[in-house]
Amino acid sequence: MNQSENRQFRLARRPAGMVKREDFEFRTDRPRPPESGEIMVGVEYLSLDPAMRGWMNEGKSYIPPVRLGEVMRALGLGTVIESKAPGFAPGDTVSGQLGVQSVATVAAKDCFKVDPSLAPKPLFLSALGMTGMTAYFGLLAVGEPKPGETVVVSGAAGAVGALVGQIARIKGCRAVGIAGGAAKCRYLVDELGFDTAIDYKSEAVPAKLREHCPKGIDVYFDNVGGQILDDCLAQINLRARVVICGAISQYNNTTPVKGPANYLSLLVNRARMQGMIVFDYADRYAEAARDIAGWMREGKLRSREDIADGIETFPETLLKLFTGENFGKLILKV
Amino acid sequence: MNQSENRQFRLARRPAGMVKREDFEFRTDRPRPPESGEIMVGVEYLSLDPAMRGWMNEGKSYIPPVRLGEVMRALGLGTVIESKAPGFAPGDTVSGQLGVQSVATVAAKDCFKVDPSLAPKPLFLSALGMTGMTAYFGLLAVGEPKPGETVVVSGAAGAVGALVGQIARIKGCRAVGIAGGAAKCRYLVDELGFDTAIDYKSEAVPAKLREHCPKGIDVYFDNVGGQILDDCLAQINLRARVVICGAISQYNNTTPVKGPANYLSLLVNRARMQGMIVFDYADRYAEAARDIAGWMREGKLRSREDIADGIETFPETLLKLFTGENFGKLILKV
Repeated sequence: MNQSENRQFRLARRPAGMVKREDFEFRTDRPRPPESGEIMVGVEYLSLDPAMRGWMNEGKSYIPPVRLGEVMRALGLGTVIESKAPGFAPGDTVSGQLGVQSVATVAAKDCFKVDPSLAPKPLFLSALGMTGMTAYFGLLAVGEPKPGETVVVSGAAGAVGALVGQIARIKGCRAVGIAGGAAKCRYLVDELGFDTAIDYKSEAVPAKLREHCPKGIDVYFDNVGGQILDDCLAQINLRARVVICGAISQYNNTTPVKGPANYLSLLVNRARMQGMIVFDYADRYAEAARDIAGWMREGKLRSREDIADGIETFPETLLKLFTGENFGKLILKV
Repeated sequence: MNQSENRQFRLARRPAGMVKREDFEFRTDRPRPPESGEIMVGVEYLSLDPAMRGWMNEGKSYIPPVRLGEVMRALGLGTVIESKAPGFAPGDTVSGQLGVQSVATVAAKDCFKVDPSLAPKPLFLSALGMTGMTAYFGLLAVGEPKPGETVVVSGAAGAVGALVGQIARIKGCRAVGIAGGAAKCRYLVDELGFDTAIDYKSEAVPAKLREHCPKGIDVYFDNVGGQILDDCLAQINLRARVVICGAISQYNNTTPVKGPANYLSLLVNRARMQGMIVFDYADRYAEAARDIAGWMREGKLRSREDIADGIETFPETLLKLFTGENFGKLILKV
């Protein structure tokens, strides 16, 4: 790693519709030496997440938008090069919001140390990182599945979705995944143990939901929004829980978001639809990581990382999330 | 009351869009004598409710649709003429699903006796009936308002909405009503004690919500759906509760229901949107009626009935609900 230069992507403009390379400026600076309370980190891996698209938009959200000219926000993992913060020393492996750059100088309080002897480093951005936390708390704390219930998850071959279905199975539920393409669907059933999967690109989702959820849907974990959310709302059970984790089908819209026309199914079924943001569960991350690591050791839960190479490919790699090309957790090796 | 004939409205066809007189057949039959377990009731008052529009549609809902040719379903109140059921005697005042007819022969188990010495009879279809129960449980059990929070209710001059705002005040909340027209808004503030009201017909709802809910919306009680639901979703607070009680703006649509385009505000704010059906709280009706009657005695809660005269006016009277003409609880005096 070249520690004398910081290669970085800054937000150059707010995207209209699909993200493009021109929305960013790729430039090389000298790394900034850490001040008191800060650490300088050689970034090794970056987590690429659908939420990043939202951070690029203007306007109030659960965290402030990335400012124009600012380094693009991203979760990452790397090794401490220099520390002006107690408890952090050169050589420590840390994770946190490092940004899309090769050398990050950040407040130590926004990072946490991980033990790279416990798992391959990318896993700390995947099943053992925010992805795993999102699946765990979104399903268990918001979805509240009970044994024997039917859990449907969309974006099921994505990083969060794949974990949601597996955790649903672990908790004694029927897990039905919705994904795009036969290969992803086979992967869900054959490799991850989903009970069944629906290929929304080639199958009629409403008919397949009726077939695969003969007792209706008790928990729907929504990563996509749009028509699939509506299709699922139409088949929820009494007192069903709809977890709104994302809406990737709507993030690059240039037209207004499509609201769920079937939302009155919530009324008829006394059901609830509830949003979740993983940061709210920060004080319980350790508990979740312990469970997830345990399930992985027991062979009950698998994580798949889709690792792209080279920070300079960032815009095109990010785009794979929105075109449905990626398979598992998308990570950029810096 | 003429007990030798039963004047009745039967559902003649499923309405397309707005309800019309031709959707019903008005006819006169001989009343059917009660069989074992049944009572024959001289119907005095009928409750006209937005939910009736939904019962006229085909398809799965929280109760089966009214069948073509069947007497239109309606809650009512009347006096027992003849009883073949233990515990019911001629002269008893009863309430239940009596239907839009002047003489109802129904299963006694579906009715309950009320004491007409306690309150004027129409009140048992209003604040002390399902209307009051809906406001009480929808707000308190689903909305879960806490003192100091801001509660917004739409359809606020309607039967349920007017009670919701008053109960919110009783519970220490700021109550903001949305209603159509200056007269209704004055009524909410001057007579019912709402903190403020927004006239959606002449005022810009988003701007007025910002003005009147400076701390944002904690509970939104939705009776209307459509654009007002979206406007409120845009201004909800962290962990807000959106109670879906109805969607009167959408019931007579011939186009698909407009889904709430701002539903992702639920995600950003970790908020929930939840449907409610009053029947789920049947085992707690007595508790609610006790509270409501107490608040009325103490002068903290007022109920206003809008009583139309003559069963033969049923279709046109029902329509007042959807044109926004009615004011308070709409009741038809048979």
